[in-house]
This record gives sequence, structure tokens and C-alpha cells, in this order.
Amino acid sequence: MPEAVWLDLATARGQPDRVQAAVVANPAPGSLQGFARLRLIQSLWAGVDRLLSDASLPADVPLARMVDPALTRAMAETALWATLALQRGFFDYARQQRAGLWRQHAQRRADEVPVLVLGQGEMGTAVAHSLALQGFAVTGWATRPGQAASGVRRIAGRGALHDALAGTQVLINLLPLTPATRALLDADLFAAMPRGAAVVNLARGPHLVQADLLRALDAGHIGHAVLDVFDSEPLPPEHPFWQHERVTVLPHVAAHTDERSAAAVVVDNLRALQRGAPLRHLVQRERGY
Amino acid sequence: MPEAVWLDLATARGQPDRVQAAVVANPAPGSLQGFARLRLIQSLWAGVDRLLSDASLPADVPLARMVDPALTRAMAETALWATLALQRGFFDYARQQRAGLWRQHAQRRADEVPVLVLGQGEMGTAVAHSLALQGFAVTGWATRPGQAASGVRRIAGRGALHDALAGTQVLINLLPLTPATRALLDADLFAAMPRGAAVVNLARGPHLVQADLLRALDAGHIGHAVLDVFDSEPLPPEHPFWQHERVTVLPHVAAHTDERSAAAVVVDNLRALQRGAPLRHLVQRERGY
Repeated sequence: MPEAVWLDLATARGQPDRVQAAVVANPAPGSLQGFARLRLIQSLWAGVDRLLSDASLPADVPLARMVDPALTRAMAETALWATLALQRGFFDYARQQRAGLWRQHAQRRADEVPVLVLGQGEMGTAVAHSLALQGFAVTGWATRPGQAASGVRRIAGRGALHDALAGTQVLINLLPLTPATRALLDADLFAAMPRGAAVVNLARGPHLVQADLLRALDAGHIGHAVLDVFDSEPLPPEHPFWQHERVTVLPHVAAHTDERSAAAVVVDNLRALQRGAPLRHLVQRERGY
Repeated sequence: MPEAVWLDLATARGQPDRVQAAVVANPAPGSLQGFARLRLIQSLWAGVDRLLSDASLPADVPLARMVDPALTRAMAETALWATLALQRGFFDYARQQRAGLWRQHAQRRADEVPVLVLGQGEMGTAVAHSLALQGFAVTGWATRPGQAASGVRRIAGRGALHDALAGTQVLINLLPLTPATRALLDADLFAAMPRGAAVVNLARGPHLVQADLLRALDAGHIGHAVLDVFDSEPLPPEHPFWQHERVTVLPHVAAHTDERSAAAVVVDNLRALQRGAPLRHLVQRERGY
């Protein structure tokens, strides 16, 4: 283990030459400047887009993302809950309850609900696999061709994405936020989906063009949206998503780092740093994740 | 196959001596009288409590329940959706959304949520198994000792039930409705559960004492209820469940017979009848299911 661990930035700043590793959760921009001996920046979050947007982040220090099995599992739970609710109409029944309406809808089998998972990294792969186990017809869209999870059809590239959208009932976004994926969920993408399809955004707010989604919802083209992330968080009180009857708003809770398992992940990387062993889950800064 | 199939009761009544099998979905009491050669009553529903409450039901004609794989699977989906929502607080977040409230709660792992499934027949076993696969700590309560599903702790008897309730966070009822199970979910049972636990009734309305549940909810002892079945259906417009913020009302949709797979089940039993082979899924009338 490192010879010293400080739990506050002020103490670390008092002896900047002793700091070899920083374990951080989206610190204020500039926080990581001035540590000449820094050899590892370990994020406690899976998404490092906000860290990378800090222009003062030391360019030559390895940056590691959090890959916590409990976080991955929590994401798979949220995606499964949302997809089951969309398959079986439970969001519709909740709306009916508020209106005092007793009305039964047709029951769809899981294999009649094609699900498209955007992103086939750690979390996208786990989500796709969990949904396939439950019987859903799952396609996983990746940046590059590669090995699909069991029971999942894997596709890659923009052309394949456009084709897959036409047969998608539930779209689940688990992409990293990069210049290439920002605003991917826009009016064009919604228009490529069949009428009544659903959108589930569990990744980052700026993946989705909020105004385009509102228009697609209000036109009845998108049937429902489950949103865990937003351009501005907390979602501002006046935002129309809050009271929209076809939007489920979650307060960024789809998956949190679990301190119990994440601590072990951090310790493993700190030990590797000390031994000079390879560091795990390193970010490739040029691709953005 | 039988020599003739009629799709309406009036035609059948016109030639009562030709009717050998009746395929029914809760017909009006008395409907099955007067068919002297009737040799099978095949229910299209899994629950036959309403059929058995018809005193004029021919006493000596075999009665078969519907055991449809699609229906069993739909029930497992509904139970999984409800349990995931309770584990991860998604009903709470829906309530927060209506109030415009952005607030995050602690994230529980599935293995931290003990689930008790009442009933270990066709559906209870499938539900318990599906929840165990998802990582929940599942106990299945059966009338008699027997083989547990993989990953499920099986218990039997009233004493064991009382002990198990103290450690239960989510109670899921899948019992058949019989004199022994009627009103089992009452104030005593709720009091035996820990504060904040949830009740999911997917079986029959009269299993649950509605007034006792309302009192337990309003006292904050029961944290949430998911109810698919009621004493009177449709649930009357003035019933307090409709607008209760800690009750999820479903309009009896937890699991419907799927006509595609159920048709095959019915045909199998009709063929067995014709060949004189053993009939499947026969009800033991003295036990009530």
C-alpha cells in the first residue's frame, strides 16, 4: 500500500510531493494540478467524461475508471426492471391507477420485445446478457465488431445501428459520453424507431437531445422514456420531464458505486501501483473512456 | 379429437348428450348442469376457486386447471418486476417524481433483500426460482415439506411461516384460494413482518384482509403493497387503494393465459380423454386446487 493516505485535498496540498495516487469522484476542475509525483488517478465513477473535460488534468498520469461488479450488477437490475415494465405495460398501469382506470392490455412475451443496447463495454455487455437470460430478443451495438455476450446479437457501425433501430421496441443507452456519442439520441434516431417504441437512458444526459425527445413523445412516436440522467442535474424543478405522463424520471440512481466492493477495486490498483504491476481499467484518453 | 366442438353454450345445450368435454373460463354458476355424458371440465384459468364455489358443478366429472407455461412465465416476470422495484426503490422514485423531488436513496444488493414466496405449486416454484437466479435470498413456503427449487430455502407449516416472516422484506402471495388460505394475509401476519416490509398479492383478493392492509400501510408498518387482485373486481372507483401513495394497483394482469400455448395444453387433455389416457393437472376437490 502507499505509505500515506489522506482523505482530504487540503492535507494533500500541504505536502504535494508525497502524493502518488489520487482516488477521486469528479473533483472540482484544477484539483489535481501541482502534484509532481502523481502516478495514478483512480476514479470512483465508471464515467470519466467530467474528469476528462478538466483541461488542467495532468496529461501524462494514468487514469483508471471504476469497474465495480456491484455497480455493473445494479445497472443490469435497473435495465431489467425498466424493460420488464415496458414489456408488460406497468408504466401504463401506473398512469391508469392515477386516473382510477381498470383496463387490461394484451400481454407480450419477452421474445416478442426486441431490445437494442447501445454500448457493449463492461455495463452494456452485462445488461444485454441479463436481458437475454430473461428471454428478450437482444441486440448489442458496439463501436467495433467483437465477441457478443451469450444470447446477444452484436452489431457495429452507424449503418447497422440505423437498420437495427427499425426493429427495436426498447432502446437502452449505456454508451460512454464522447464527442462521437454526444447527442446521438436525437430526432433522427427516434424517427428511425417504430411508433410506440421506448427509450431508456442510463448513461449520460448529453447523449440525448431533450427537446427532440419531448417532441417525439408528444407526437406519440416514442411511447415512453425512462431517464436517469439529464443535461443538468438535479433536473430543474420547472423541467417538463417531471410531470410528463410518459416519462419516468430517476434521480441518477440507476447504478451507484458500492463502497464495499469498490474499496477492493481501488486497493487492487493501489497495490499494483506499488509493485509496479499493470494498472487495471485504464482510460484511453484519445477515445474518451 | 372430440367429434364436435361448439363455441357457445346455447348450441351445446341444444344437444346435451353429445357434450363430453367443457373448456371454460369461470362460466355462470349452473352452466355445467344437464350434460349427462360430460367427462372433463377443463379450466382456462389456473385458479379454480370460483368454479368450485358453484354448488351445481357436477361432482363426479374430472376438473383440470390450466397450467400454461406462458402464464407461469408471465407470473414470474411480474413478481421479478415488483421485487426489483421494491429492492431498488423505484416505487419511491415514482412518488418523488410526482412531487418533483430529486433525492437518492441507499442502493441495496439483491442478496440483502429476503423474499418469502407463499405457495410452492407450479407458479410459486417458478417465481421463487426466477428470483433466486436474480440473486435474491428466497424462501418458499409450502403446505407440505418437499423438494425446493434450486437456490430456494423451502419451509412448511404455520410455525415455520411465522418465524420466516420476521426476516422477510418482500412477501409474495401465490397460494391457491381455499378455506385454509382465505384471509391469511391479515393484521397478525403483517405484524409479524419487520417495519417497512412490502406485500405483493398476485393470487386472489380474499387471501388478503384489505382493511388490515390499509391500517398497516397507514401506520407505516407495511412500506408498500403491490396488488393485482381484489375482493371485488374491477376495484370499485371509490376504493382507497386507487389513490393510496403506497399501493400499486394492477387490474388483474399479473399473468394471463396465453391462447397460443394454452390451446396446446387444452388439446393435449382432450386427446388424452379420447384415448383414455391419464388427464393432466386434475384438481383435488377436497383440498381446493
